[in-house]
Amino acid sequence: MRLKKVKGALEIVSNSDYVIKEPKKYRGKYKSLFGNNNPVHIEIGSGKGDFIINMAKAYPSINFIGIEKYDSVLCKIVNKLELENIKNLKLICMDAIEIDEVFNKEIDTLYLNFSDPWPKKRHAKRRLTSEIFLKKYDLIFENKNNIIMKTDNQALFEYSVMSLNNYGYKISYISLDLHSTNEFNIETEYERKFSSKGFRIYKIEVYK
Amino acid sequence: MRLKKVKGALEIVSNSDYVIKEPKKYRGKYKSLFGNNNPVHIEIGSGKGDFIINMAKAYPSINFIGIEKYDSVLCKIVNKLELENIKNLKLICMDAIEIDEVFNKEIDTLYLNFSDPWPKKRHAKRRLTSEIFLKKYDLIFENKNNIIMKTDNQALFEYSVMSLNNYGYKISYISLDLHSTNEFNIETEYERKFSSKGFRIYKIEVYK
Repeated sequence: MRLKKVKGALEIVSNSDYVIKEPKKYRGKYKSLFGNNNPVHIEIGSGKGDFIINMAKAYPSINFIGIEKYDSVLCKIVNKLELENIKNLKLICMDAIEIDEVFNKEIDTLYLNFSDPWPKKRHAKRRLTSEIFLKKYDLIFENKNNIIMKTDNQALFEYSVMSLNNYGYKISYISLDLHSTNEFNIETEYERKFSSKGFRIYKIEVYK
Repeated sequence: MRLKKVKGALEIVSNSDYVIKEPKKYRGKYKSLFGNNNPVHIEIGSGKGDFIINMAKAYPSINFIGIEKYDSVLCKIVNKLELENIKNLKLICMDAIEIDEVFNKEIDTLYLNFSDPWPKKRHAKRRLTSEIFLKKYDLIFENKNNIIMKTDNQALFEYSVMSLNNYGYKISYISLDLHSTNEFNIETEYERKFSSKGFRIYKIEVYK
């Protein structure tokens, strides 16, 4: 994510009811935050928010939480939500490395959409499918660990298939060219842009 | 493999010293057939033989066996070998479904190159990475089950990654575009033809 400082971003984010301000406080209690017992799905790296907003609209009986590291990005999602009233959607401004300090055995599904590929080998552990993160995810899932990943980055996808496989995940779905299939698919902004340029979109769904 | 009857094929195959005539007789004794204790690598579906011949030349301390179902195809490999004297190469004319009747705990590595994709769902079990075949392979490997697969068929590759993963194999290497890498690679005839037309070549190496 190329970062531009956005003036007033912090204020916009702080004033929004969609944004959970002290997320660690709700650890283990996210269902009660939503006031129902529906499954909680989270997305790490929500970017401009199209995916998580459209998922929340498409699946009203699932609770969604979009996670984004930068307030300058998160404020764009908040702005999009200004005229909306979506009960099953919340946002958190945080670094994914803290994921296990924020959630505890309460997540049903994790979406990793077009994550930073960290192409250099020495940065491999920063990839969101590295063993470091997979260990953290083990702590946040309620039952089965459902991870659904999309990317246009071939090297990140190859790495992720290996990493998930070797960590013990089973594969329930894989596509090496998602947009050539008839699968129902809610796109991210990034996905729309890069797939329209002819890039392949890779997708994998795993569980454990 | 589109099949053309080749006149005299059976005779050519029968008269070649490269071809093992009664392969079930050597079950469990393939190393002694080669007269050494080197690892035995086999290829199912050797086609016109370029891969297995060039592998045998490149790795003289490995014993190679090329397996081909049709004598009309196998005779082409035999013809290519007419002026060669390759001590570490043998051929077998057989259907892969009989693999566990021919070998017993003596194979080091299995190559599956551009296998028939059997695209119809009702034929899925005929694919060489279906559970039916994976169970048979369990009986033929000596130590670790090493399988190395290449294909240009996206659907077969997706199926195979899932099938191998869910059967418990670990992935040691994966490429979604082999010819864009610098990996050392001995090509099959088919591979040369289709990659030159711009098709991607997929490769996976697994063990268990």
